[in-house]
Amino acid sequence: MMEDLQPGQKLARGVSRCLRSLGFAPLEEFVPARGLRVDVMALGPKGELWVVECKSSRADFQADSKWEGYLEWCDRYFWAVDMDFPAELLPDGTGLIIADPYDAEIIRMAPEDKLAPARRKKLVQKFAMDAARRLQFLRDPVPGKDGLLLGGAGGADLEV
Amino acid sequence: MMEDLQPGQKLARGVSRCLRSLGFAPLEEFVPARGLRVDVMALGPKGELWVVECKSSRADFQADSKWEGYLEWCDRYFWAVDMDFPAELLPDGTGLIIADPYDAEIIRMAPEDKLAPARRKKLVQKFAMDAARRLQFLRDPVPGKDGLLLGGAGGADLEV
Repeated sequence: MMEDLQPGQKLARGVSRCLRSLGFAPLEEFVPARGLRVDVMALGPKGELWVVECKSSRADFQADSKWEGYLEWCDRYFWAVDMDFPAELLPDGTGLIIADPYDAEIIRMAPEDKLAPARRKKLVQKFAMDAARRLQFLRDPVPGKDGLLLGGAGGADLEV
Repeated sequence: MMEDLQPGQKLARGVSRCLRSLGFAPLEEFVPARGLRVDVMALGPKGELWVVECKSSRADFQADSKWEGYLEWCDRYFWAVDMDFPAELLPDGTGLIIADPYDAEIIRMAPEDKLAPARRKKLVQKFAMDAARRLQFLRDPVPGKDGLLLGGAGGADLEV
């Protein structure tokens, strides 16, 4: 599977392993609202929602004009970059994770800005349906029906 | 994958396809509470939770002493059986689905007995974490760490 991954997706894999070890359930390429797609959305045991954007290079970071739009869809927002990334580029008030394809570590905890209960409820609901549908696609691809979604992250575009 | 499935799991596959076509996200072998494991838990777009128990034979049904305990963990409760099952055995006040490994159809809608909001919230949260964790296991099995859970339904025993 590793061979098919883009640099950012490799970081996301390490990030997901790290988040898992912290008791969170990660879901990659999650769409919190139409037109937005976050690299990793992680759900914690108390319903906490963290967003992690993975940047494989300076150019990758500088091309991102959407990240501020993600802040309102999570309780905490992190960047994940590799060891060589110039971390001083990253804006204040965000978390920092150093990642490689195999693992990751939180270097700076993101500040908390709690979601409103109604939005959290809606996001957890969508997270649940997206994750279950992707799992079903992986376990039971239905050729010629929904199977085509398997090519990507597996149903990331599904709307609730 | 089909070759490895038990008769009840084959029905669950058909049931899951049917539920998907109805806009629900199915999750097999879900544990709503310690000591309980339902064959299929399905989450609907408005947060509806349906339980489907799959019975491959009369003996399979008669050996089930736990099903009444599932009623309080869903809004609607269904049995799924194959064409040859003596449906008159099934208790009143439950839904009926006729299934095969490839598809299924709701023959009798289950009556609705709505979950309390706090329980629904807790169940959707657990459903979300379980589904995302199983998905991660399938996409990124970590040998010798959590990978062993892949042998079964993939993390069905995880507690939130």
